[in-house]
Amino acid sequence: MLDDTYFMKQALMEAQKAFDKDEVPVGAVVVCKERIIARGYNLTETLNDVTAHAEMQAITAAANVLGGKYLNECTIYVTVEPCVMCAGAIAWAQTGKLVYGADDEKRGYQRYAPTAMHPKTIVKKGVLQEECAALMKLFFKKKR
Amino acid sequence: MLDDTYFMKQALMEAQKAFDKDEVPVGAVVVCKERIIARGYNLTETLNDVTAHAEMQAITAAANVLGGKYLNECTIYVTVEPCVMCAGAIAWAQTGKLVYGADDEKRGYQRYAPTAMHPKTIVKKGVLQEECAALMKLFFKKKR
Repeated sequence: MLDDTYFMKQALMEAQKAFDKDEVPVGAVVVCKERIIARGYNLTETLNDVTAHAEMQAITAAANVLGGKYLNECTIYVTVEPCVMCAGAIAWAQTGKLVYGADDEKRGYQRYAPTAMHPKTIVKKGVLQEECAALMKLFFKKKR
Repeated sequence: MLDDTYFMKQALMEAQKAFDKDEVPVGAVVVCKERIIARGYNLTETLNDVTAHAEMQAITAAANVLGGKYLNECTIYVTVEPCVMCAGAIAWAQTGKLVYGADDEKRGYQRYAPTAMHPKTIVKKGVLQEECAALMKLFFKKKR
């Protein structure tokens, strides 16, 4: 079934790719009419680029596929709550819906910019929360 | 003299390039040890990409030049107050100093995410404010 859980699993597969590259394991997919049109995973270390978050890459890729920069008919699935930068990008893209898994109390946008989201963007959180958070915990435990 | 005014003039030259391409005229330069190591101007329409703000491009380019993703010894000059997305990127890069020209009361980060900046980033505003704002006003007047 092509529901939120299904697509979050796909985002988790992206996060696993980041994990395997020793990157903070966050993954994202952009879905339009039940079809995944873009994928991304965190590559900040590999690319030496703080802007290379999963969501940023997925948004850029999705706009490329659509031939337009607005994602108002799309849902972005992210394994972890977006940071301020990514929330800003999701807002600029007028993204139809944001679904995320685990909260990020330290760096998540809700702490710093709770009103940054576009007013029309529907936000849903907690999908596969435990799996998304577990991958992050495993990463940071390995780092210590 | 290689002061803030000099570098802001360089950022304004970038903004003019955006203006000439019918893009919202915002420009940025990144300066490290009195040398411009990266330039950028808004290309969101041309690239069909909401993430293609002047600052984002300049940050990515500067990290490329430095071979590292932190800009703690750099100053970023932007003609207009950064948005939430760009403020987030400037924070992730741990940018040493942010200097901007005109305020952006509608979309600037100070309205939505006043605490988003890295605590070590020095922020200075109002350099060539009138010139920076005038270019924006001219652009939006032309659009009407």
